[in-house]
Amino acid sequence: MALAYDPLFITSDKTSIDVPSTPPSMILTQDELKRIAAYKAVDFVKSGMVLGLGTGSTAKHAVARIGELLRQGKLSNIVGIPTSTKTQEQALSVGIPLSDLDAHPVIDLSIDGADEVDPCLNLVKGRGGSLLREKMIEGASKKFVVIVDESKMVKHIGGSKLALPVEIVPFCWKFTAEKLREVMEGYGCVAKLRLGENGEAFVTDNGNYIVDMYLEKDMGDLRVVSDEILRLPGVVEHGMFLDMASTVIIAGELGVKIKNKHSSGCC
Amino acid sequence: MALAYDPLFITSDKTSIDVPSTPPSMILTQDELKRIAAYKAVDFVKSGMVLGLGTGSTAKHAVARIGELLRQGKLSNIVGIPTSTKTQEQALSVGIPLSDLDAHPVIDLSIDGADEVDPCLNLVKGRGGSLLREKMIEGASKKFVVIVDESKMVKHIGGSKLALPVEIVPFCWKFTAEKLREVMEGYGCVAKLRLGENGEAFVTDNGNYIVDMYLEKDMGDLRVVSDEILRLPGVVEHGMFLDMASTVIIAGELGVKIKNKHSSGCC
Repeated sequence: MALAYDPLFITSDKTSIDVPSTPPSMILTQDELKRIAAYKAVDFVKSGMVLGLGTGSTAKHAVARIGELLRQGKLSNIVGIPTSTKTQEQALSVGIPLSDLDAHPVIDLSIDGADEVDPCLNLVKGRGGSLLREKMIEGASKKFVVIVDESKMVKHIGGSKLALPVEIVPFCWKFTAEKLREVMEGYGCVAKLRLGENGEAFVTDNGNYIVDMYLEKDMGDLRVVSDEILRLPGVVEHGMFLDMASTVIIAGELGVKIKNKHSSGCC
Repeated sequence: MALAYDPLFITSDKTSIDVPSTPPSMILTQDELKRIAAYKAVDFVKSGMVLGLGTGSTAKHAVARIGELLRQGKLSNIVGIPTSTKTQEQALSVGIPLSDLDAHPVIDLSIDGADEVDPCLNLVKGRGGSLLREKMIEGASKKFVVIVDESKMVKHIGGSKLALPVEIVPFCWKFTAEKLREVMEGYGCVAKLRLGENGEAFVTDNGNYIVDMYLEKDMGDLRVVSDEILRLPGVVEHGMFLDMASTVIIAGELGVKIKNKHSSGCC
């Protein structure tokens, strides 16, 4: 998908939502949009910070950019906390010093992508399979900046018809998947075990499985649904990140929009 | 600890609470009391049932008794669903045919011990380390009979000063243990990682760790505390079994008492 964009139209991060009025002058791919959002998020990074490093096709641009700024000497004294083994490998390869939550239980800033963002800045995450570590690390962050291209913006969670992932223990996973389907039945749910490249169950960094929940309808009060899912024994974590994002940076056809938590009008 | 007991004083399972008035005539150890409660629970077992088989020093007497009745031909066509690899081994050794929750998602009857039982028949379980599988299996049971000696009866959860176990993912366990301690701080909580015989972290059948939460105070509304614990990313399950027990069989100095859910006056 080719989208149009002019870097000059990036709006101030002091603005809640800002779409430039002049027409775009360049055609950009979705991956270029992701990169633009990621670079904008890295503007929030200051030397000396402890940073949560996200996982996925958008977050990898942020990790690469932080490495670049460290090499250029424009950033220093950064500690990265990776949200997956994959991000850990990338961060090491670009020269970001790493640590973990046990050593750094408070994180200054996390930057990560999302699969869906609703108007209240609630997120769906986990299509990359790292939802549990992401939720631990991003939940421990003073500021959590989410970076997306505009295709991720939805009216309600499940609105993109893509999956809400739920991490479950492998023990009797069919039983747990069926219980999940029953809990979500009112929302037109289909539950599918995620498979890996070898055709067997995909296994998370924590040794668990993922069930992808495909939803047809708005779930209403997400906190109620969240608690219902978490109460199922066998469920480890789900991919709804409720009331966690401080800021969402959205790269789209007409430039970059920035939405802040307290100006979303919801929370 | 030696306690006195006369088997003739076992009361009917139709009675909610019944203590015989005549004095006891024998001295029994705590293990013998556990065995008496277990045998009484096995009276509920009928041929053809799918049975949840508990784990621990009390439940093992029930598993042994079911095996004995199968060998004697007094029970037949039983399918056992073990709550741990340990129980699986014992059940196989005494000749109980086994299956799992995926094949049998509805269980007729589960029998298991408990570490604490409050007046509303809410339980603490998991000192044996099998709380997650126990909760999955016992939560899928039409009837759940709990077998204890009277030392397990408490006024409120945490009342025995023993631990409330919480199963957590190994990833950054110190961080999760600290978050748990913060959630439970108002109840005078100390959180300790459970260690195995080798002095390293005890690992559950699901590859996770257990944090034992030692409480000083009544936690009040247990459902609220349960949800607060389950909302912590990193937590897999906790050892509070709320509103799950149908019947509690209590073996004590003066005989066997049976408490049923609907006559406990709480729930």
